[in-house]
Amino acid sequence: MKVAIQGEAGSFSYEAAKRMVPGCSIVACARSREVFDRLERGSVNAAVIPIENSLAGSVAEHFDLLLARNVSIQREYRLRIVHNLIAAPGVKMKGIRRVYSHPVALDQCRDFFRAHPKIEAMPFYDTAGSVKHVMENGLNDAAGIAGRQAAAVYKGRILAAGIEDDKKNFTRFFLIRKGRRIVPGGKKTSIAFRVKNVPGALFKALSVFALRDISLTKIESRPMRGRPWEYVFYADLLCGDDKVARNALRHLAEIASPVKVLGVYRSA
Amino acid sequence: MKVAIQGEAGSFSYEAAKRMVPGCSIVACARSREVFDRLERGSVNAAVIPIENSLAGSVAEHFDLLLARNVSIQREYRLRIVHNLIAAPGVKMKGIRRVYSHPVALDQCRDFFRAHPKIEAMPFYDTAGSVKHVMENGLNDAAGIAGRQAAAVYKGRILAAGIEDDKKNFTRFFLIRKGRRIVPGGKKTSIAFRVKNVPGALFKALSVFALRDISLTKIESRPMRGRPWEYVFYADLLCGDDKVARNALRHLAEIASPVKVLGVYRSA
Repeated sequence: MKVAIQGEAGSFSYEAAKRMVPGCSIVACARSREVFDRLERGSVNAAVIPIENSLAGSVAEHFDLLLARNVSIQREYRLRIVHNLIAAPGVKMKGIRRVYSHPVALDQCRDFFRAHPKIEAMPFYDTAGSVKHVMENGLNDAAGIAGRQAAAVYKGRILAAGIEDDKKNFTRFFLIRKGRRIVPGGKKTSIAFRVKNVPGALFKALSVFALRDISLTKIESRPMRGRPWEYVFYADLLCGDDKVARNALRHLAEIASPVKVLGVYRSA
Repeated sequence: MKVAIQGEAGSFSYEAAKRMVPGCSIVACARSREVFDRLERGSVNAAVIPIENSLAGSVAEHFDLLLARNVSIQREYRLRIVHNLIAAPGVKMKGIRRVYSHPVALDQCRDFFRAHPKIEAMPFYDTAGSVKHVMENGLNDAAGIAGRQAAAVYKGRILAAGIEDDKKNFTRFFLIRKGRRIVPGGKKTSIAFRVKNVPGALFKALSVFALRDISLTKIESRPMRGRPWEYVFYADLLCGDDKVARNALRHLAEIASPVKVLGVYRSA
């Protein structure tokens, strides 16, 4: 099974994909848009995308793409984000002068840099890509910060594990496939909808779930792409594809337009 | 008046601060936390922070800090994000081999790099910081991508203006001050609140506004910092500090706890 991800082999998306689809072959894409293009063209069977991080918030672009494209969510997965210092075999901590990684990862490892004031933090495109860079160029005074998979993929060595400041760092991933596919027995539903900009419109929209005792576990308004300050709502519901849920969505369609079911899937 | 921002002089926050408080002196901070620390300590009079970008979504860390700290929103401002290619005076486009900027800015200028395949995109910490780097090191084969203010601050020259792919790129900024300060005549209110994780809880919470014809212009659930997958809601309301609004908030406090008013301010 071919699974597309955004980012390099060895990245956190790579790790999530390997855990969600053991034995899959990974197709690494430079951009998120390319991940969705490949899925819709059918050149991959599935894709794994990060949707929300407990510290950094939602990945807005992925919500926008879920709404715009003909794909559906098949599963969710929560990955604990652990940052590691990874260098070439033989390189010792005291020889390191520069550490490359994505700015967000560097920022999540401030305590490490405070404890090692002689090491310079160097921004790079990608966490796993920074390890690839260090290994491919045979740098012996540099390291990268990335997940442990990056060490395995590029044959680096972990010099320090778990150097992130905040251990409560999780990312939620979706496994997505082309077309509209409801997962049998799925108990979680993600939807997107737009309501008119009048008082009480969102309240009315939510009434279709509250009046049926369907719980919301997440809601978020996002400016519509290309129409700044017009909002679309994303919501996660604790319901599957049963009669009550279908009635609720029909009821919602009287109030909101468009309504799109992004997926009915098993929760993590 | 001293205004703290996160990032370098010449950044988009710098531009927003200069427009919101003409003639202010800017205190540039490396981290957002430092901006809030300075404000609470009283070493600056105010701060200007980005809260939401029309393409990239909310700045999650700033919502978390608004909730945690003793500050309040005084005003909002919408800045159109225009990216410019900025180099040292005398440097010509055809001499440029590397372009530095923040990865998000580089990503928003893909068409430029596609049109100039010989130019390498180099990730950097900060948009304005990339221009500072190019100017301070006298690089004559490199440029930075940043707002026009960066050219003015570091005495660079704009070689190409408006090179961002998507022109509908806006960022919403807040001017914040220490303590609880309601802006007289303010017609917009931002709040944060937590509800129990039971069906219909959010619906009940929103009823306090719907039943009083108070419009919501934004709502977002965020995992609570340090407690992944427990959610706090952020909402923007079209109401000021009048009797009806105060009743609505008292009503909300019966259902949600805690409820924090992040600010009552004039809308952009």
